[in-house]
Amino acid sequence: MASVKLIGASPSPFVNRVQIALNLKSIDYEFLEETFGAKSELLLKSNPVHKKIPVLIHNEKPICESLIIIQYIDELWMSGPSILPSDPYDRAIARFWGAYIDDKCSLAEIRKAGGEEERLAAVDKVVAMLVLLEEYFINCSSEGNGNFFGGDNIGYVDIALGCFLGWFKVMEKMLNLKVLDITKTPCLVKWAERFCSDDAVKNAIPETEQLLEFAKIHLM
Amino acid sequence: MASVKLIGASPSPFVNRVQIALNLKSIDYEFLEETFGAKSELLLKSNPVHKKIPVLIHNEKPICESLIIIQYIDELWMSGPSILPSDPYDRAIARFWGAYIDDKCSLAEIRKAGGEEERLAAVDKVVAMLVLLEEYFINCSSEGNGNFFGGDNIGYVDIALGCFLGWFKVMEKMLNLKVLDITKTPCLVKWAERFCSDDAVKNAIPETEQLLEFAKIHLM
Repeated sequence: MASVKLIGASPSPFVNRVQIALNLKSIDYEFLEETFGAKSELLLKSNPVHKKIPVLIHNEKPICESLIIIQYIDELWMSGPSILPSDPYDRAIARFWGAYIDDKCSLAEIRKAGGEEERLAAVDKVVAMLVLLEEYFINCSSEGNGNFFGGDNIGYVDIALGCFLGWFKVMEKMLNLKVLDITKTPCLVKWAERFCSDDAVKNAIPETEQLLEFAKIHLM
Repeated sequence: MASVKLIGASPSPFVNRVQIALNLKSIDYEFLEETFGAKSELLLKSNPVHKKIPVLIHNEKPICESLIIIQYIDELWMSGPSILPSDPYDRAIARFWGAYIDDKCSLAEIRKAGGEEERLAAVDKVVAMLVLLEEYFINCSSEGNGNFFGGDNIGYVDIALGCFLGWFKVMEKMLNLKVLDITKTPCLVKWAERFCSDDAVKNAIPETEQLLEFAKIHLM
């Protein structure tokens, strides 16, 4: 029996976060796919408080909340590349932006918007978040010339934000607008290309067409 | 010039969290008191994203968000007592409950409630949170006979929840009801007494009368 299991569903960006972290650390795991709209007994038992994916089950013990899981993975499998910075201050700053992204990047708000105006306002909020993150990226990556928020390699903030890139593309297609806009966030546009072409990410984030299909069936 | 400064205000439970953590680690700091309703230039400069207290300034560098600050303090001053558990799994669980408390313990919701019914519903949510935390306390502290969530000493979850105890008492007085109820959360009632009488906490959380006075002037 695999000692690492992940309860999740591929279209979930929060699940993708954990998949990317496990890939970065080269950890084999069993993927326990949840059916959309249903909740397995294992999920209810493993995350009785929130009843949400992802849940990582390691040695039969569950860990919930994607950013907490990533920190757990990073702290436990220290032999792989570091996901959080080693310096406590840099780590605090990475946690700050991770929390900020979780607070502001509400795709549900865009989806549930009552009308065109409300929807555009929700998209604007996401774009405003990206503009701030562009500033942070420039600060933390040699004036924007670095590869990732985490330096040369993908790190915590990269994963926290990058997991949404597939869904940004879906929104762009469905709403016919730009989320990651070269005129507003040029460094992040290039960062996104680098992020999505990384081996640890490629297999974790579904293709845009797949997400689009999922959205048409389940979210509209 | 002190190398550790805290921008805050005494009635803020989130500021109290940081004060408790600094006290536990016996770290001297300069308290830079913000005036209620105003925001100093230093605050705006130090936390341009959220513009909120607390902000810890260490060696001229700002760290924001109370639970992130606590982790920073714990990781940096490792010589003092540990605030987070040393085991990665226990640490993940502590982070989970810290995030849960921040998500559910909305005193602002109670304050802003439109009427009696709405207010009682908001209080019920806090009580439901406490009932879950009572369960967790029983699980993690020798069937409820331990001292703290963190074991023998005050830890991360103790601070995350304990900072609200002063305000729970204020709500109980103002609304004439019970928040921390001996019939629903008996272990937490005793835990609260232990927590509030700890030297690291005593000077950090203001007296109920002071908070009541503050509430009457500023929040009503």
